[in-house]
Amino acid sequence: MATTAFKIVLIRHGESVWNKENRFTGWTDVELSEQGVKEAHAAGKKLKSGEYTFDIAYTSVLKRAINTLNIVLDELDQSWIQVDKSWRLNERMYGALQGLNKSETAAKYGDDQVLVWRRSYDTPPPPLDETDERYPGKDTRYKGLTKEQLPKSECLKDTVERFLPYWNDTIAPTIQSGKKVLIAAHGNSIRALIKYLDNIADDKIVSMDIPTGIPLVYELDKDLKPIKHYYLASDAELNSAIAAVVNQGKAKPQN
Amino acid sequence: MATTAFKIVLIRHGESVWNKENRFTGWTDVELSEQGVKEAHAAGKKLKSGEYTFDIAYTSVLKRAINTLNIVLDELDQSWIQVDKSWRLNERMYGALQGLNKSETAAKYGDDQVLVWRRSYDTPPPPLDETDERYPGKDTRYKGLTKEQLPKSECLKDTVERFLPYWNDTIAPTIQSGKKVLIAAHGNSIRALIKYLDNIADDKIVSMDIPTGIPLVYELDKDLKPIKHYYLASDAELNSAIAAVVNQGKAKPQN
Repeated sequence: MATTAFKIVLIRHGESVWNKENRFTGWTDVELSEQGVKEAHAAGKKLKSGEYTFDIAYTSVLKRAINTLNIVLDELDQSWIQVDKSWRLNERMYGALQGLNKSETAAKYGDDQVLVWRRSYDTPPPPLDETDERYPGKDTRYKGLTKEQLPKSECLKDTVERFLPYWNDTIAPTIQSGKKVLIAAHGNSIRALIKYLDNIADDKIVSMDIPTGIPLVYELDKDLKPIKHYYLASDAELNSAIAAVVNQGKAKPQN
Repeated sequence: MATTAFKIVLIRHGESVWNKENRFTGWTDVELSEQGVKEAHAAGKKLKSGEYTFDIAYTSVLKRAINTLNIVLDELDQSWIQVDKSWRLNERMYGALQGLNKSETAAKYGDDQVLVWRRSYDTPPPPLDETDERYPGKDTRYKGLTKEQLPKSECLKDTVERFLPYWNDTIAPTIQSGKKVLIAAHGNSIRALIKYLDNIADDKIVSMDIPTGIPLVYELDKDLKPIKHYYLASDAELNSAIAAVVNQGKAKPQN
C-alpha cells in the first residue's frame, strides 16, 4: 500500500455578499459577508487545533479568497509565510451571467437554459463583449494576461484547463520539494483540482458539493497520487455545511 | 533640476499591544492594538483618496507590519497585488531587552545605560543567549537564515546593514523596472531606508521620529536619488502624530 508522502490543505472561501444577494459572481471581486468572515475564522481555528503548519499558501486574485486566507493565517499565527496569488485559482468566469440574480437570469434566458449552463461540464454561458465593463481585460490586475488567456466566459472544462498549468508548473513542484502547502480558493477551482487528483468523470464533478470554510486535507503519495482525503469537521458539521451549499444552489445562483 | 522618475510609499505600522504595555518589542511578534488597527485603516483611506495604486508590496515577517499592510491593501481594493515578506524589513532586534518594560529595564540596567542603547547608532543592547526562548534561531520562520544572519541583538547600524542587501538586490531593481512599490515596515527598518536614501548622519538618524500609520511618499529620480518626500497628512495631523511618537518615546520603550 502506498504511504503518505505529502499532505495539502484546501479551503473554499466562505459566504460572500453576492451569495446573499442571489447573484452569479464569477470573477466579480466581492467581499466576504459577515458569515463568510466567521467561517474563515472557524477554518483557521480548526487547522490550529490540528496543529497544522504551512510553508507557503496559494490563492486567487479575488478578495473573498485572499481575505479568507489572511484570516486563516492570522488564526494560525503563520501570517509570515509566503503567499502566491494567481488568476488561475480564480472562480469559474460566468460571462454575461455575472452580476445577474436568479430571477433576472431566468427572465432573460429561461430556467432550462440556466440549468444547462450550471450542470454542463463543457457548455459555457454567453460570453462578455470586450467593451463590457465586466470584461477582465478592463481590470488592471489581469494586465499581464494575453488576449487568449483572458476569458469572456468559462464552462468548468475551461476552468480546469487554465488551472492545471499552475498546478503542474508551480504548486506540484513546490509540494514535491517538501514544502507544506495551503490553497485557499473557490468552488470551481477546487473542483478543478479534485477532478484532476481523483480523476473524476466530467458528469460527476459538476455536481460535487464542496462545503465553504471547512479545511479539506488530501494525503498524497510521492507521485502526488491521492491516498485519502478528509474534511476537518465532525460528520454532523460536514452534513450541515454541505446541506447549506446544496440549499444555496437550489435557491440561488452559485459562487 | 532632476525630475521624478519613481514614487514609493513607506508606512510604519500602527500601535501594537506591547506599546501599550510599555515593553521593548523588537522581533517579538505582537498584535496591533485596536488603535493600531484604526491607524492602518486611516492610512489606507489616505492612499485611496490620493488615488495611489501599487504593483507590489514589501513587508517584514512580523504580524504588526503584515496586518497593517493587509488592512491598507483592503482599503485600497488592491489585495490582489504581490506581497513579499522578508526578515530584513523586521524591526531592530532588541536582544535581552525584548519583553522587558521600562521599569524592569531601568531596574536591571540603570536609566543611563538604557538611554545609551536607545540613542547610540552603534552600541547594541545585551545579546540573547542561544538557549533563550527569545533567540530567533528557535523560531521556524527564520529557519532559512545562517547562524551569522540570526541576530542576538542589534544596534541601528546592524539593522541598516541587514536591511540594505534587500533594498539593493530586490526592492531597488523592482522600482527601476517601473513597478509601483509600497513598503509596510517598522520604525527602525524605515529609518534604515531613509538614512540610506537621504544620506543622513549616524547621530541624526537615531533621533528621527517617524509617525505611525501615515503614508510617507518619496519621489526618486532615475538613479533612485530622492527629489522630495512628504507625508500624506495635514501639518496639524502630522505634528500630532509625531508628538504621539515622541511622547511614547519618553514614557515608554520604543518599538
